[in-house]
Amino acid sequence: MKTNVKVLDCTIRDGGLVNNWDFDVDFVRDLYDSLNAAGVDYMEIGYKNSPKLVDTEGVGPWRFCEDDFIREVIPEKKNTKLSAIVDIGRVEVDDILPCEESSIDLIRVACYLKDIDKAIDLVEAFNKLGYETSINIMAVSNSLGLGLNEALKKVNESPVDMAYIVDSYGSLYNKDIQYLIETFKKYAPNKKLGIHTHNNLQMAFSNTIFSYEQGVEFLDTSIFGMGRGAGNCPTELILGYLNSTKYDVRPILRVIENRLLPLREKLEWGYNTAYAITGLFNEHPRSAIAIRKSNAKNNFLGFYDKLSSVETHEDIK
Amino acid sequence: MKTNVKVLDCTIRDGGLVNNWDFDVDFVRDLYDSLNAAGVDYMEIGYKNSPKLVDTEGVGPWRFCEDDFIREVIPEKKNTKLSAIVDIGRVEVDDILPCEESSIDLIRVACYLKDIDKAIDLVEAFNKLGYETSINIMAVSNSLGLGLNEALKKVNESPVDMAYIVDSYGSLYNKDIQYLIETFKKYAPNKKLGIHTHNNLQMAFSNTIFSYEQGVEFLDTSIFGMGRGAGNCPTELILGYLNSTKYDVRPILRVIENRLLPLREKLEWGYNTAYAITGLFNEHPRSAIAIRKSNAKNNFLGFYDKLSSVETHEDIK
Repeated sequence: MKTNVKVLDCTIRDGGLVNNWDFDVDFVRDLYDSLNAAGVDYMEIGYKNSPKLVDTEGVGPWRFCEDDFIREVIPEKKNTKLSAIVDIGRVEVDDILPCEESSIDLIRVACYLKDIDKAIDLVEAFNKLGYETSINIMAVSNSLGLGLNEALKKVNESPVDMAYIVDSYGSLYNKDIQYLIETFKKYAPNKKLGIHTHNNLQMAFSNTIFSYEQGVEFLDTSIFGMGRGAGNCPTELILGYLNSTKYDVRPILRVIENRLLPLREKLEWGYNTAYAITGLFNEHPRSAIAIRKSNAKNNFLGFYDKLSSVETHEDIK
Repeated sequence: MKTNVKVLDCTIRDGGLVNNWDFDVDFVRDLYDSLNAAGVDYMEIGYKNSPKLVDTEGVGPWRFCEDDFIREVIPEKKNTKLSAIVDIGRVEVDDILPCEESSIDLIRVACYLKDIDKAIDLVEAFNKLGYETSINIMAVSNSLGLGLNEALKKVNESPVDMAYIVDSYGSLYNKDIQYLIETFKKYAPNKKLGIHTHNNLQMAFSNTIFSYEQGVEFLDTSIFGMGRGAGNCPTELILGYLNSTKYDVRPILRVIENRLLPLREKLEWGYNTAYAITGLFNEHPRSAIAIRKSNAKNNFLGFYDKLSSVETHEDIK
């Protein structure tokens, strides 16, 4: 195994997009203990957005990750570090405690390309507070070209630790990932790289191990692939692939049976033909998620024809 | 799209391993019409083993593909060619009609490495009868090294049209496929290459498009991934990837909704953690298939520990 690789499990964070962060405390605590026993490097425990800035109605606490609450859930941190992600415009920087007073080690800033300056402002603030930081450029499949290069130059000059390639639409193949890695390496050569994939085209695991082989050091995964729409690269497959004494897949297999399978019986995530269709069209998965919740959930041909006739992509929201 | 690529859909043949070839005639006819409308090059309609040599109890007709029956099912062949596969020791060569009297265009011979001479004997017989032929070397992940090189030299000297890499255990990654393609190209340079994958490690589609990019011309797929255990590379994803005017994914989407989804409600196939475990151990999926039919179907940790403690692989049957 390459020595610098880090596995970051985002089951609670990306999975929270499936169930509105409605995980109970036992579930999250068990996941933390299992990830720690498995040797996983980071657990992303949720979003650290501000309840003042987003709708809190019916939303679980992992959307906000308030420090007192997180400390209650995981009173004793072990080897696995904790991360949380923030969205541009939804985080109140003044409410973020210094890292030494928080259980969170890493704050990741998710942004679209157009918001790169705002992302860097946030990174600078979190960096001063003592956190590790990353910038996660979402929907990167729609962000190619000059704009990306310029953004990456700014990222390279910022204090951020990692720059993440995020295949939000699950529409990328290995060759696209290769192009992105080359671009990130060229314009942000001082930064560690990370990869976050979605499984719309059954490429999440393949794209992640491809990235690993190309020197990407931070690999996002989720247990049983739990994540929005087609879900993410399964933690269990990555640990099997890395096949290192540093990691042990066994605690993950246990938690799949005890925690993820019962949840999967109630909630849908993972590869489905509807998600493949948005992947093929390089579209946000929201239309597929909506179809899957409707009476037309299996009308794949109708859905394909509808997307074919859309002349312009939806705005990125 | 590379001009010589051929897509071979094996839904009925590999899917027959899931339901004992219990497809009704309407289903198979609809699949043929859909594959033809989609521009798929070949449909593998089943095995052409002899009812004299295998157990016929409770087995559907697609295990035998008798010529009169196939002509009844598909009275009028269209552009999509038909193929059937045979197993060593289970086919009666004397009962095979000349190609011009049969609806079958291509006969594929499945063999383990140890039976390569028998496979070539069959190929010679079928070739004389006017069929296109292929040799499909199964369980290739357990067949590396000198024995494979020698076998491929014999294949190269035979009249066979295609040599297939078959990842029976779904245990191969792109880098393994790359090694195999290089080996096949080196020792059987005169033959077209084919690829048949399984999805144990969520690599079926990735390995198939990787092979395509490396010049492999025959791509095995199945609709909705229907096939033994973790299933195969989905036809719909390949047609989307090739994105050529030669192919149209729409008829496949229709048949998924109308035919495959109702079947999937009754039968299990496709990626599952149990199949991932046999993939990681480079084992035949039969133990995972058995687990999935037992009360311990979700005891993934127990299954993993059991396979860990097996000191020698099961014999290949």
